[in-house]
Amino acid sequence: MTAPGLFVSFEGIDGSGKSTQARLLAETLRARDRDVVLTREPGGSPGAEEIRALVLQGDPDRWSAQTELLLFTAARRDHLERTIRPALAAGRIVICDRFADSTRMYQGLSRGDLRPAVDQLHDLMIGTEPDLTFLIDMDPGQGLARAKSRATAEERFEDFGLDLQTRMRAGFLALAREFPDRIRVIDGNRAKAAVAADVLAVLEAELS
Amino acid sequence: MTAPGLFVSFEGIDGSGKSTQARLLAETLRARDRDVVLTREPGGSPGAEEIRALVLQGDPDRWSAQTELLLFTAARRDHLERTIRPALAAGRIVICDRFADSTRMYQGLSRGDLRPAVDQLHDLMIGTEPDLTFLIDMDPGQGLARAKSRATAEERFEDFGLDLQTRMRAGFLALAREFPDRIRVIDGNRAKAAVAADVLAVLEAELS
Repeated sequence: MTAPGLFVSFEGIDGSGKSTQARLLAETLRARDRDVVLTREPGGSPGAEEIRALVLQGDPDRWSAQTELLLFTAARRDHLERTIRPALAAGRIVICDRFADSTRMYQGLSRGDLRPAVDQLHDLMIGTEPDLTFLIDMDPGQGLARAKSRATAEERFEDFGLDLQTRMRAGFLALAREFPDRIRVIDGNRAKAAVAADVLAVLEAELS
Repeated sequence: MTAPGLFVSFEGIDGSGKSTQARLLAETLRARDRDVVLTREPGGSPGAEEIRALVLQGDPDRWSAQTELLLFTAARRDHLERTIRPALAAGRIVICDRFADSTRMYQGLSRGDLRPAVDQLHDLMIGTEPDLTFLIDMDPGQGLARAKSRATAEERFEDFGLDLQTRMRAGFLALAREFPDRIRVIDGNRAKAAVAADVLAVLEAELS
């Protein structure tokens, strides 16, 4: 018997532990013989990874907010067509580290005037939302310290400091209020195992 | 005295001579001391050229029609911001070899169901139309023979044969009927100099 496909995303500020939690959930489900695809954005398919590299390399001012939005949407469309939809059609569980909520946050927060364009582009070219989104909520100062300790040259979004992290946290929490049926807020200010247990409990309730 | 900026595009099927006519018009206007920017799509700015390379390299099935549309729109947005708008703001004449009409044609014709998405994306992220568009109309068989004689690996759109060229010609003529105030149809089945003289006469009437 094939379990129905389920699309789960993880969101949160940099250093919130969302990538760790996505991986832990995938490991736990695989240990229970669930068929899991663990993926991430931007990227997640060969074409989308190439677009990711094009966006994130080079000078931060290389692309305008609008061009960057179009490139990320192109990457998401490729990821959706080549990775996410085929996996869901085969009844697999897709766990995605960041999805459209990250775009709503990052583009919408630094350029709030673009939120309508973000939404219209999503409706026009993406359409799909996760069945369930875990927002790993984290103290911005603690998140920033963690993110800095492992920063790579690619992670230029993390160069903006505590004020931006604080605004991003508020932005994610606002999204959780905007999509209350889909987004579940998990307290990330705890040991990894405790956070993972909460995530698993919510998912099991969803699957049952 | 600065002449007002003017945005002129050239369109037509492969082998129609549109690139030659764009170049000839730029040369003529420069010889008359007009300040001209000659550019092209896809491409026309450093970022857009990189996106062009990403789209046109590799397997023709590498990107879906929707992803390709998003990538071309990203390239156009960059081209518009970095090349076209600054030139127009400085009062220059911008001559562009292909613009949004080519997207309407190529994406809309091979995937007619996408024309609404093409239009909505254009309205949302581009908005700008040329002041004047020259459609260099050409017999499809003659155009195809010309295009094949100079084909490069990049020009994979030209691999589809006479039937597609015929449909493309019809599609461009339909666009000329859709935008009668902007698009001028020029008979391209003549000597280059005769075609160039017609183009110049229309432009002079526009500038006067």
